[in-house]
Amino acid sequence: MPPLTTPKSGDALFASVERVNAELFTLTYGAIVRQLLTDLEEVEEVNKQLDQMGYNIGARLVDEFLAKSNVSRCVNFKETADTIAKLGFKMFLGVTATVTNWDAEGTTCSFVLEDNPLVDFVELPDTCQGLQYCNVLSGVIRGALEMLKNKYFTKWSWDP
Amino acid sequence: MPPLTTPKSGDALFASVERVNAELFTLTYGAIVRQLLTDLEEVEEVNKQLDQMGYNIGARLVDEFLAKSNVSRCVNFKETADTIAKLGFKMFLGVTATVTNWDAEGTTCSFVLEDNPLVDFVELPDTCQGLQYCNVLSGVIRGALEMLKNKYFTKWSWDP
Repeated sequence: MPPLTTPKSGDALFASVERVNAELFTLTYGAIVRQLLTDLEEVEEVNKQLDQMGYNIGARLVDEFLAKSNVSRCVNFKETADTIAKLGFKMFLGVTATVTNWDAEGTTCSFVLEDNPLVDFVELPDTCQGLQYCNVLSGVIRGALEMLKNKYFTKWSWDP
Repeated sequence: MPPLTTPKSGDALFASVERVNAELFTLTYGAIVRQLLTDLEEVEEVNKQLDQMGYNIGARLVDEFLAKSNVSRCVNFKETADTIAKLGFKMFLGVTATVTNWDAEGTTCSFVLEDNPLVDFVELPDTCQGLQYCNVLSGVIRGALEMLKNKYFTKWSWDP
C-alpha cells in the first residue's frame, strides 16, 4: 500500500467523489449565463460576474481537493499548473487540461481543454461577441489559489 | 441478452452517463440562487425564476432520458411518478426519490429526496423565508413532462 501522502491519480480522484449528470450541470451553467446576460446586459459585466462566481466556488472547492487528493506542496508555479490541469480539472469536471503557452519567465500559461463539458450544446448568438462563456473556470482557479495562499502562506515558503 | 426495450436500472442508467463532481454542481447552483436573490430581491420572483430555469432544462434533459433509459410509455400517472423517482432522479442527480402523499384521485403526489445534492452545505439566512431553494427541480419535471406531451401526444393516447 502506498504511503498516505502519495497523490492520487486523476482517475482515482474522480472516482472517489460524488457525481451528478454532466448534461444537467451544463444546462444549469447555461441558465446562469443566460440569466446574467438578461440582468446585466453588458457582456463585459457578465464576464466579471462569472469570474466572481467562480472565485467564490473555487475558494470552497479547494478544501475538497486538498482533503481527497493527497497533494502536498507544489514546489513552483509549473508544478502548480500541472496539478490543476491533471488533477484539479479531472476531479471536478472529469477531464484533463493541457498546459501550454508558457512565457519565458514561467509566470503565465494557458490551460487548453479539448473536451469541455461547459460548452456542450452551446451556440452563442452574434450579440454575445466578447462573452467569455467559460470565465467561471478562471475564477475557480483564482479563488482556489488565493485561498491556498491565505491558508498556507504562514506555514509554507512559496517560491516567488 | 434482454430485448432492447427493457428499461435500464437506475444504477445502470447513472453509470452510463457523463458526470461531473457533485460539489461543483451544488456550489454552481448556489451561485445562481444567490445571483437571483441579488437581482430580483423578491423571494417570490426568485421562486418563479428557478422554476422557469428548471422548465427550460427539463425540456432538454428529457431527450437524454428517453435516449438512454429504454423507458417506453407509462400507462398512468402513478407509473410516470415512479419512473421519475427511481430512474429520472437517479440518472441526473445520482439519488432516488420516494413518491408519497398521493391524493384520493391519484392526481397529486410528493417526491421526497432523502439525500439531495442541491442542499449540501446550504444554510439560508432568515431573510430568505419563503424561498423554495430547490424549485428548479419542480421546473425540470414540469418541463420534461410537458415536452413529452407535446412530442408524443399525437402518437400516444395518454390516460387522463
